[in-house]
Order: sequence, then C-alpha cells, then structure tokens
Amino acid sequence: MYFDKAETYSREEIERIQVVRLRNVVERAARSRFYAESLGGIDPADIRSVDDIRRLPLTTKNDLRASYPDGLLTVPHDQFVRLHVSSGTTGNPTAVYYTQNDLNSWADLMARCMHMIGIRPGDVFQNMSGYGLFTGGLGIHYGAERLGCLTIPSGAGNTARQIKLMKDFRTTAIHIIPSYALYFAEALTKSGIDPRRDLALRVALVGAEPHTEESRRKIEDALGIKAYNSYGLSEMNGPGVAFECLEQKGMHVWEDAYLIEILDPETLEPVKEGEIGEIVMTSLLREGMPIIRYRTRDLCRFLPGECPCGRKHRRIDRILGRADDMMILKGVNIYPMQIEQVLMAMPEVGQNYLIELDNDGHIDLMRVKVEIKEEFFIEDMRALNALRERIQTALRYEILLTPKVELVEANTLPKSEGKAKRVIDLRKQF
Amino acid sequence: MYFDKAETYSREEIERIQVVRLRNVVERAARSRFYAESLGGIDPADIRSVDDIRRLPLTTKNDLRASYPDGLLTVPHDQFVRLHVSSGTTGNPTAVYYTQNDLNSWADLMARCMHMIGIRPGDVFQNMSGYGLFTGGLGIHYGAERLGCLTIPSGAGNTARQIKLMKDFRTTAIHIIPSYALYFAEALTKSGIDPRRDLALRVALVGAEPHTEESRRKIEDALGIKAYNSYGLSEMNGPGVAFECLEQKGMHVWEDAYLIEILDPETLEPVKEGEIGEIVMTSLLREGMPIIRYRTRDLCRFLPGECPCGRKHRRIDRILGRADDMMILKGVNIYPMQIEQVLMAMPEVGQNYLIELDNDGHIDLMRVKVEIKEEFFIEDMRALNALRERIQTALRYEILLTPKVELVEANTLPKSEGKAKRVIDLRKQF
Ligand SMILES: [Zn+2]
Ligand SMILES: [Zn+2]
Repeated sequence: MYFDKAETYSREEIERIQVVRLRNVVERAARSRFYAESLGGIDPADIRSVDDIRRLPLTTKNDLRASYPDGLLTVPHDQFVRLHVSSGTTGNPTAVYYTQNDLNSWADLMARCMHMIGIRPGDVFQNMSGYGLFTGGLGIHYGAERLGCLTIPSGAGNTARQIKLMKDFRTTAIHIIPSYALYFAEALTKSGIDPRRDLALRVALVGAEPHTEESRRKIEDALGIKAYNSYGLSEMNGPGVAFECLEQKGMHVWEDAYLIEILDPETLEPVKEGEIGEIVMTSLLREGMPIIRYRTRDLCRFLPGECPCGRKHRRIDRILGRADDMMILKGVNIYPMQIEQVLMAMPEVGQNYLIELDNDGHIDLMRVKVEIKEEFFIEDMRALNALRERIQTALRYEILLTPKVELVEANTLPKSEGKAKRVIDLRKQF
Repeated sequence: MYFDKAETYSREEIERIQVVRLRNVVERAARSRFYAESLGGIDPADIRSVDDIRRLPLTTKNDLRASYPDGLLTVPHDQFVRLHVSSGTTGNPTAVYYTQNDLNSWADLMARCMHMIGIRPGDVFQNMSGYGLFTGGLGIHYGAERLGCLTIPSGAGNTARQIKLMKDFRTTAIHIIPSYALYFAEALTKSGIDPRRDLALRVALVGAEPHTEESRRKIEDALGIKAYNSYGLSEMNGPGVAFECLEQKGMHVWEDAYLIEILDPETLEPVKEGEIGEIVMTSLLREGMPIIRYRTRDLCRFLPGECPCGRKHRRIDRILGRADDMMILKGVNIYPMQIEQVLMAMPEVGQNYLIELDNDGHIDLMRVKVEIKEEFFIEDMRALNALRERIQTALRYEILLTPKVELVEANTLPKSEGKAKRVIDLRKQF
C-alpha cells in the first residue's frame, strides 16, 4: 500500500517534521555564499512553526543565475556527484548540484510516486524520455530502479524500436511526454497493434509539459492505460515533487521533502485557500544545495478537502500557467488558463480564442473573442446570443469580472505558430 | 593508488578466485533454460582449475538471439532492475538483464577503471556520450558517480553546450567517442579556445569504436590530455571489462570479474601466447544472467610480460578486427589488421591498399597492392624496388607468408565509402 512511512503521516506529523527540517535547512543554507548574505542574521532557532518560513527571503531564478555556477553550495566541491544544468534561453543557465545523499533521497521520492500508482518490482518500466541534462530522464530512471522495476532506458524517439521493446518485454509502465503519447498511439494503430489486445501496458507517467485533463483522457483512451500527472522542477531535484495518486484528483506534494506556499505574485502574500497563485518551494532534504522559498513562476492552487486515498499531503491542481502571464484587471488577478478552461469545457467552442485588454474611458475592459465550430455557427441569432450569454456567465463565475464576449466564425482569429499568443493588451498607460 | 584490493592480487590469487567464481557461475547458470540444456550434466565440482573452463560449451551471439528475450535468466523476473538491448542488424536483438547486484558490481568495475587513470572525487567528469540503451552511456555514468566525481550527464552532440559546460565547470575528465573527439577539438579551435590555456581537461576515456594508436595520439595532442582505451561489450555488462592503466601499454582485463580466453576462431583451441585470436569471455560476477565462454568475434592478442604498473591482470592489445574478417591462406590464419599495421607504419605508404587472394595453379597466393604517396612515387626504379622489398619482408615477418607486393600510384585503387573493402578473394573453389 505505502512505499514509506512518510505517506501515512498526519498533518501534525508533517508539520512537525517540516519545522525541524526547515530549521536544518536554514542552518545549512547559511554555509553557502549566497544564503550567508541573503539570510542575514536569521537564527534557525527562530523557526518555531511552518508559518515562520515567511520570515525568510524569497529566492528567484535571477538569484540562481547571478550565483552561477556554485554560489549556493554548502559543502566542498568533491562531495558532489551529479550536476544538471538547465538550458537557459538568455544569460547564464542555472546549475543544480547533487551529493550522493541528494541522489538517494530524490530516487526515494520518485520511487514513492511510482509505488503510489501501483508500480511494483516485477513491473517492466520503459523510460521513453530523453536522458542527459534533462532531469526527467535520469530522475525517473533512478526512481524506477530504486523501486525494483525492470527499467528499460529506451530514451526518446525511435518509435519502431519502442514498439518492439514494448511487445517483446511486455512493458507494463511507461514514462512519456504528453505530446508524444498521442503520436505514439497513432503509430501503434498504423502498425496494426491494439494496445489492449497486444500489449501489457497498464500505466503511464506523464509530465514535463503542460497538458489538459482532456489530453490526459485521450492518452488513456488511445493506449488503454491510466495516466498520472507529475510535477517537478530541477531546482527541487526534478520530477518527484508532486504526483497524482490513484484517485487522479490533483497531485500530492511530498511535504515532508518540500515546503510549498502559494503566493500572490504581486503582493507576495499567501493567496486564500483554493485561489490561484505562484508556487513557492523550499527543499527540506537537499543537503548540498538547499534552496529556500524558490519562486517557481508556476501558477497553481491547492485543492480543498482531504483526498479519498487517505494521504494527508496537500494536493495541488495541474499547473495553470506561468506567473508572467498574469493579467491585472480592475485590481483583480486573472490568468489566461482560467479563461481557457471555461471555454474548452463548452462543446460549441472551436480551437482558437483571443483575449483583448482595453481601457475604454479609463475603465479596464476585457474582450474575449471566441471561435465557434462551424456546425454551431448557425444563422439563428437567438441561439448564438444564448450561447454568448452562457459563456459570459461562466467566465464571470470564474474570474469575478464580466468580460465582453464576441462569437466569431471558425478560422477567423489570427493563428500563431507554436505557443499561441492569446492575450493582447491594448491598454494605454496614463 | 588502488581502488580496490583486487587490483593487487597476485596471479595465484587471481586464478584461485577465478576457479571459485567459475564454479559458482556454472552452478548458477544451470538454473537458466539455456544453460540447463547446454551445460548438460557438467558438475560444478569438476571445475578444479582455470583450464577446466575448456570442458564447458561455447556460447555464441546466435545462442543469445535464439534464447531472446529471457532464456538465460537465472532468477525470477522481478529481481531484475535494468535491461539493455542491442540494436541487432538482422533477426532478434540481444537482451541483457541486470539485477541490482549486477549494476553494483558493474559500477565498481567501471569506477576501478577510472580510478586507475587518476580520476578521483573532486574531478569533474563530463559524459559526452549517448545515454539510453547504449551501455557506454549509463555504464560509465554509474562508474563516475560510484567513484564520487561530479558527473555531468551532457550526452552526445550539442558541441556549443559541451564547450560552455567544460569552461564553466572546469571539466577535468571526459568520456568521448574517438570519431567525435577530433571534430570536437576543431570546434574548440574555431571558438578561439586553446584547451591547454582555457580548459582544465586532463584525461579522456575513449572507446566504443575501433581506433588506431595514431588517432589516440592525435586526440591527445589536439585536446592537451591523456586518452585511455576502454574495452567492453554489453554481453559482459558493457564498458569496464578491460581498461588501460597509466602506462598506456595495453588494456588490463579485470580477470577477477571476467575470465578471458583467446582462441583460434577455426580450431577453437587456445592460440599460442601473443598470437591473434578471438576473445572468448566468461562473466564471473553476473548473477542474473551469467554468460559462459561467449564468442565475442573480436580479434585480439595478449601482450607478453608484466606491466610496469605492477598489476598482474593480463593485458590485451587494442581490438584488431572481427573474427569474420579472418583469412586462411595455406592453412595459416591471417587478419587484415596485421597487414594494415605493417603498411601504416611505413611513411611512404598512402591511404589505400588492397589485398587480393588468388590460387594460381592450385597454390594459394596473396597479392597486396599498396598506394605510395606522390612524393615517394619517383621514377627511380631502384628506390621503388627497394621499398617494395622492405614491405614484403615486413609482411613476411608478421604473417609468416610471403605475399606478392605491388606498388601503385596514389588514388588509383578503388575507394569505398565507409568501411573499406580491403580484401578480395578471387580463389576458385575446387
Ligand atoms: Zn490521494
Ligand atoms: Zn598496467
């Protein structure tokens, strides 16, 4: 049932451990050049409750870049055995160092994730993910071996070989990138393979790319499996930070290893329970390069209530976008993902939409242009008006503002290659 | 000085351990479907000396293919944690399974190799090799971590990033494919980087591809490092089977872990000391999938005498070709590599040569056509004749037969793309 005892901790036990470990982290971090300065004179003994974390300074990606390559290290160089480097788009990349203990605790956490979704020794685990500097590859590989699966390091690509391995070795579990999963399912069909009939596949770990609940269901359906979401980032080791349980209702954060906060990205105050904000994380177990209150820029929210699985580790929703995408309208924080979720839940809505922000006579205004599928774009104005009002009402419930909704024909909004530019800010600055 | 006590074993100790382990391997192997049949009724107790290995049957690549995927396994499936699969060109690939103990002993052996060439904790090791199913990637990665190096899993390709990592993290040791090493050195020069001045590089592991002593010296020169040869094959775990010491005079075979024979590929009898034959290997430590007397098809010879480094593990030459390339002429085994080595040692000889086998009046005959560099192809017939005779004599010393040598002008022999077709057999069958 459980991989380790941390999974059965009560809230009190989790928080007691968090306080002890946070104190250790503050003490340890102060040995690094960066935190020696940034923590100032903070005394670890002053950490008496989880909430005392708010006395500690935040750490940003820029801080990591500025202290590249080794400003955050707390032990001599010869105690590190692994280095991962992110491929930063501009300026310095960020470097994450691991001691042997760090690798061990990372593998344990990752094994815990896999165990939670029913993977066991005897399972055949095909890691269809790139290796190398990408933490998703080696991170999940080490977890699978730690758990005792037969681990096939098949790596990314080479679809024909992936299929042969899957058939020959009766692969039961895979790690796959969501965007590749549907392509792969198609390739199976083209090879005349029915996964339910010809393969032993049972479960997939999907992560590394944002994807919707609808995509997950499509992947499950196409491969005849259950697919579970994963959350992680290299600054917090990599994968294994938060993971879905069998309930598939949000990802449990391993709070014995990571202290999570969700903050308003503007005010840096905690958001109200259930509201969207930026994930801020503190690593509680990393000994060689602890990071305190790291601003991930990932937007998310806590899911309310207790999980039916019985674990008391709090659950987060799937990642809802990047903090950099946040809009502020009439003083309210709004995220494109909120609007997208409302629109995509409506069968009449097509592939494309556009959010325009304007200030008509000094008052902020949001215009949402929505493409409607051809079969629904009928000439009955009453039906279209009713649809427009339904969309407007649903959006108002979600973002607490009433946007102006315009319905447009399919394929009339500008298409963008790759990541769609969904928001246009036409507001004049005064 | 030494990574583990096995490195200081005397010949007697090595052979004593080999006998004990060989007995264990025979006992263990008999639990697999394949060896239960192939070993017949051989009683492990009958193994009383290393030479008793000759009572055991040989195992071929075809045997592995025929028992694909799991006919050689000695423990239940759920005790395996890793699977590597070779990309067979025809028919079934071969699959190699590892238990956790197998991974551990493999990492230990690989760490021993790296320690032998002066790599230590504190070294920064950049693994510039593909990961995934290729055993060279993960095999050396695990060895580096086991040794305690800061291991950068940079993977293959992406030269610009490799260079940046090397500069930013003061990389001291690399694993690099020989054919990429010279390309990489050129890329450094183009980036204005002088490895001796701007980098901290000290040592390289080169393997996975056959390469000449001349190529090694070029790599050393271009990168300002020492480069050490590695030998391994996935059937014997992967890299870490034999490795050069600081003397760079042949590769020590870890005979406490692998029992090596060099056999005549035709008669299957041991060749005389120092003669060329096929490497036949028995894994002494692999518990989950032991392989007995595996015919590697790799041609090699033992190097005579003791290594100045003091280790008593026998040394092998660099790999001298594939057993499939062997020619039999007047009952004598001859390998193209023998001829190539003689020719390439002569400064007058150009890039290309061709070996023709013929039977003129029922007597086997070898004709060797040799391109001579333009500057030596002068019209002085006496000088050319003298050169021709020198080549003939050198070849006779090497192959114990007197071939007919023809000198030809540069660029007159047929060039072949990729692997040159050096041998043409014109002999008629009677
Ligand atoms: Zn749960
Ligand atoms: Zn030596």
